[in-house]
Amino acid sequence: MEIYLDNSATTKCSERVREIVCKTMELDYGNPSSLHHKGVVAENYVKAAAAKIAKTLKVSEKEILFTSGGTESNNLAVIGAALANRRGGNRIVTTQIEHPSVRMPMERLETLGFEVVYLPTDAYGVVSLDALREAVNEETILVSMMQVNNEIGALEPVEEAARIVHAANPRALFHTDAVQSYGKFMIRPKKCGIDLLSASGHKIHGPKGVGFLYIREKTKIKPLMLGGGQQAGMRSGTHNVPGIAGLGEAAAEIYENFDEKINALYALKEQFTGRLSQLDGVTVNGKAGRESAPHIVSAAFSGVRSEVLLHTLEEHGIYVSAGSACASNRPSASSHTLKAVGLEKELLDSVLRFSFSVYTTAEELDGAADVLADALPKLRRYARR
Amino acid sequence: MEIYLDNSATTKCSERVREIVCKTMELDYGNPSSLHHKGVVAENYVKAAAAKIAKTLKVSEKEILFTSGGTESNNLAVIGAALANRRGGNRIVTTQIEHPSVRMPMERLETLGFEVVYLPTDAYGVVSLDALREAVNEETILVSMMQVNNEIGALEPVEEAARIVHAANPRALFHTDAVQSYGKFMIRPKKCGIDLLSASGHKIHGPKGVGFLYIREKTKIKPLMLGGGQQAGMRSGTHNVPGIAGLGEAAAEIYENFDEKINALYALKEQFTGRLSQLDGVTVNGKAGRESAPHIVSAAFSGVRSEVLLHTLEEHGIYVSAGSACASNRPSASSHTLKAVGLEKELLDSVLRFSFSVYTTAEELDGAADVLADALPKLRRYARR
Repeated sequence: MEIYLDNSATTKCSERVREIVCKTMELDYGNPSSLHHKGVVAENYVKAAAAKIAKTLKVSEKEILFTSGGTESNNLAVIGAALANRRGGNRIVTTQIEHPSVRMPMERLETLGFEVVYLPTDAYGVVSLDALREAVNEETILVSMMQVNNEIGALEPVEEAARIVHAANPRALFHTDAVQSYGKFMIRPKKCGIDLLSASGHKIHGPKGVGFLYIREKTKIKPLMLGGGQQAGMRSGTHNVPGIAGLGEAAAEIYENFDEKINALYALKEQFTGRLSQLDGVTVNGKAGRESAPHIVSAAFSGVRSEVLLHTLEEHGIYVSAGSACASNRPSASSHTLKAVGLEKELLDSVLRFSFSVYTTAEELDGAADVLADALPKLRRYARR
Repeated sequence: MEIYLDNSATTKCSERVREIVCKTMELDYGNPSSLHHKGVVAENYVKAAAAKIAKTLKVSEKEILFTSGGTESNNLAVIGAALANRRGGNRIVTTQIEHPSVRMPMERLETLGFEVVYLPTDAYGVVSLDALREAVNEETILVSMMQVNNEIGALEPVEEAARIVHAANPRALFHTDAVQSYGKFMIRPKKCGIDLLSASGHKIHGPKGVGFLYIREKTKIKPLMLGGGQQAGMRSGTHNVPGIAGLGEAAAEIYENFDEKINALYALKEQFTGRLSQLDGVTVNGKAGRESAPHIVSAAFSGVRSEVLLHTLEEHGIYVSAGSACASNRPSASSHTLKAVGLEKELLDSVLRFSFSVYTTAEELDGAADVLADALPKLRRYARR
């Protein structure tokens, strides 16, 4: 039996995604830059994918740029926007709980002379809008705030934040890392003033190695990848047609029967946090219910090391994360997010993340809760010796 | 009937590649950064792919870095090496006939204050080693020379070039863009002093959206993509496991029965250039036979516009390129390579590239030659009116 509860790390490709990927690998394998029929067919897959994604966001397909994934989208948004708008000012505002693919580019920008302000959060991981108001000034060229935190599922007030930023400084760009929120929330960049939005294929049952960056029309960013001039010069390199076609399909699919899917995820979350709350020494991180993401449950298990608990669950075929998988094998102890929310030091190394998908069932979560209920007292006895 | 002669633009995925891509999309879909079993299984695909590629080059698997393709590999090699070694000097040497994914990064480096020397070629597109000897000095930190030119198939003397560079300045790094040569030539980076080597999956019947950069041990380059710290911090972002696994399989497969495959390609090339030489007003660009690449035939068709000829061939299901597809829909007229080899101005807009793969047959090439023999006089009559 396999209970996969690590969907914020990556998801299984859907059948529809696999079908279109296979077709573009075997039959419609042309290069969209080729002038002949086979190139045109390939180009049509790219256009169709852009149209499918644009539809989910109610934006123009010309505003969708394909990348190699969430990390490239975030690097391009942050570094590309900063370098292209340097003459407008020197200040960039972000938060203390961004994914490393935003935080590390910010640190590089600091070495290039930019001033970066890192906004704090409350104990639930929600960024302070008062701090944002204070931070945005005439010198601010970019604000980057994730929509859903990857470690604890905190839901950030990006719509309000974008409004605050544009009111304070109409020239400042607003970027959101939507890698964990795209496909889980209805997002309307135009309506709420998001200029740049990053998303990834493999978090929504699409392929790995592909993502997109929404770039609002007339937004200036400097390309990172230079070469043949594909994608209007903004991202050179032969289009990853199978990946792009798969991403388009995944985007269309995840937003079908959307409310039903999200309601089901919230019901699963409620069920699982309910079970966790019955266990001794377990604290669920972040806000409950609809005030945080539908698919992420982060919990601290007092007196148990997360890695030990992770491997105990693994023995039962249950797969979860310690902290976030994205941080490449680093345990939760070094998590910026858990420090930002002020988690007690003794619990920092005792956090697990359970993340669901549309394929997750109530039975699977009950199974996982049963194993936890059985294992925790035993592990604590062992740890005390 | 379909005769695909645009394999330098992109190739069809092999069956073995498609199988492993499908398996890692459906079953072994874990994130290699996850600590549990499903992550470990995914990580093993990545390790196996690195080992397969390393074997084809006789290098260590630790020296293989996975990227999103040839363009990223070239950007990372050129910009990454320049920025990491800036203190060693200010001069970079390259050629006039590099792919845009090398040339454009060079141009960006010039805006950052680096001095870039562009070496000329002879009439066959072969770079002058005398010019290289003159260009490399104490200030030189990087030399980048492609192994096979993507437009005319010229074979560059990279082994000798690498020796010259290291003899003149042991600190200078030698990079080769092997996107068109990997899988067509046996390459031994260690033996001939190549420090950095770029390759792409989709040119060797592997997936699009994935490539690698060979980075010789202890070679310093600065990462372009920052984030979760994957691949020892040199290329952050969730591993594209299906792409990487497919690339590894493609690399292993292309080097099986290697001599046989390459002999067959050279035989096809001889047959096809033989047929072309019987036609009036056709000039084959570059050197003949084993002195250039086995899979690329570039020819100028006097008095006919390449785009017109391309679409005439297309009507017969024959797919070729005008110039190179990589230059994203730009006709051969703007080609740096064709200008560098001194092609007459009247012919610049009359060049087609025919590129073969292991799936190309003698019958297909005869069919293409028959169509050319029939079409050329007609098109010329039409053009004269």
